Amino acid sequence: MRVRAGTPRAKPATPVRIVRVREDRTTSHRDVVAGEEPMEIRLLAGGRCERVAVTMRTPGHDFELAAGFLFGEGLIIGRDDLAALRYCTDVAEDQRYNVVNVHLHGGALPDLARMERHFTVSSACGVCGKAHMDDLEVRCDGPLPAGPRVSVARLATLPSAMREAQGLFEATGGLHAAALFDANGTLLAVREDVGRHNAMDKLIGWALLAGGLQQEAIVCVSGRASFELLQKALAARLSFFAAISAPSSLAVDLARRFGVTLVGFLRPGGFNVYAGAERIDGLPVER
Amino acid sequence: MRVRAGTPRAKPATPVRIVRVREDRTTSHRDVVAGEEPMEIRLLAGGRCERVAVTMRTPGHDFELAAGFLFGEGLIIGRDDLAALRYCTDVAEDQRYNVVNVHLHGGALPDLARMERHFTVSSACGVCGKAHMDDLEVRCDGPLPAGPRVSVARLATLPSAMREAQGLFEATGGLHAAALFDANGTLLAVREDVGRHNAMDKLIGWALLAGGLQQEAIVCVSGRASFELLQKALAARLSFFAAISAPSSLAVDLARRFGVTLVGFLRPGGFNVYAGAERIDGLPVER
Repeated sequence: MRVRAGTPRAKPATPVRIVRVREDRTTSHRDVVAGEEPMEIRLLAGGRCERVAVTMRTPGHDFELAAGFLFGEGLIIGRDDLAALRYCTDVAEDQRYNVVNVHLHGGALPDLARMERHFTVSSACGVCGKAHMDDLEVRCDGPLPAGPRVSVARLATLPSAMREAQGLFEATGGLHAAALFDANGTLLAVREDVGRHNAMDKLIGWALLAGGLQQEAIVCVSGRASFELLQKALAARLSFFAAISAPSSLAVDLARRFGVTLVGFLRPGGFNVYAGAERIDGLPVER
Repeated sequence: MRVRAGTPRAKPATPVRIVRVREDRTTSHRDVVAGEEPMEIRLLAGGRCERVAVTMRTPGHDFELAAGFLFGEGLIIGRDDLAALRYCTDVAEDQRYNVVNVHLHGGALPDLARMERHFTVSSACGVCGKAHMDDLEVRCDGPLPAGPRVSVARLATLPSAMREAQGLFEATGGLHAAALFDANGTLLAVREDVGRHNAMDKLIGWALLAGGLQQEAIVCVSGRASFELLQKALAARLSFFAAISAPSSLAVDLARRFGVTLVGFLRPGGFNVYAGAERIDGLPVER
């Protein structure tokens, strides 16, 4: 697999001049906001080219985003499917780094009809839950790997470790993050994006391009745990999911149904366990 | 326009049993999480029926969500386009309240090709920024209305007023909100959802079904200001947008390009103004 690097035109963080009001003082000065740009993902094989997705993302780690997205959708199975990742050069100058061409090995494009459930959809995941649950069962063939065992004390260290590694959040105050940790609480990677799902796709894409997903890893997200984030973790066969904020009902359902450990409201002082408490060592026993 | 009410099967908030870890105490007890369910929107006219969108949403205010979404997409222009809103009865029992049929006046469905840009898309907005910017210019024909003038002191009251009106957030800790206020800071409506864009669509749908959008209103969102939220505000010709959290670069671009007042990091102690400071009265002048 060849990857042609490029320097994105759009910056992950963009300087802007603002008026800042604090109590009775108003100042005008330069600030920094999180970059947001459209990115189109195209699949190429056998002389054909199909547009697969357009997402609003924070520029940076674009090839990881493309790989992670395609993997989450089941359109690629692993790195070996990828022949090359390149920015498309056949676009207007100002979209120069906003179109990623994904060249596949083999002579045929995958069936894009499965993406049809995504037709439209705004914020959300664009999933007919019913159809998707069925789809997911197919893709989660067989039980999940045992996954990591993590101690209560290690869990409590993850939020600050993730936050410290979030370079862009500090500057902009406006980015979601997703991180992978090993069972000892060592940070493997963190990715940031204005979109929560993009951060997760970049993270999984990183693992994929770096040589494969560690199924003993813990995934930790800076925001909430929703259906689609759980679904992405399941596609990657990750069985330990920790969120700084709240889970949704469907995230809890999914975790219980597939045997994922789901931790929410993970803060230095404690956390909630919604499913899979058996992977957490040292839970104080008291009721 | 007729609206047939229904009682959603899925609850806006769902009870779950959890393990709660706090310092050295572990307790098992009942908690509440935000409801998340798929909702499909179908358009019906002239004997035809087309599936337009599926979104993961928090049940409740479903017809507002459908109306607001269709309006934001330019598929309806106003309430007068709507003949009836009904839950589809021709679905499996467990999806009974997850499909909304929107019956239009007139004999033809609108052109759904404009939705094609949404093909796929995960978290994000599914928009080719370039194409969309052009589209938006068409839809924002002529300058925005003057909009409200709001004092610094009034602005500072919005976050707590919104939070107090967020019934579900208190219970679940996991919902986004969007609210409309008049220029005096009086709350007109608040809507909550696991998806930020859904909360905004519900809010605009509320205004639409209640008889029209007040273009003197302030829109306030509990999270960040992104491209797509600004775009929804523009479609509704709302010119004052306040966010509790950070804006993205494209949100700032859009606000400046179309003359929207964009306030971010709105907190009791202050805020940042990214565009349109002239609508804010009483800005202390000091540099």
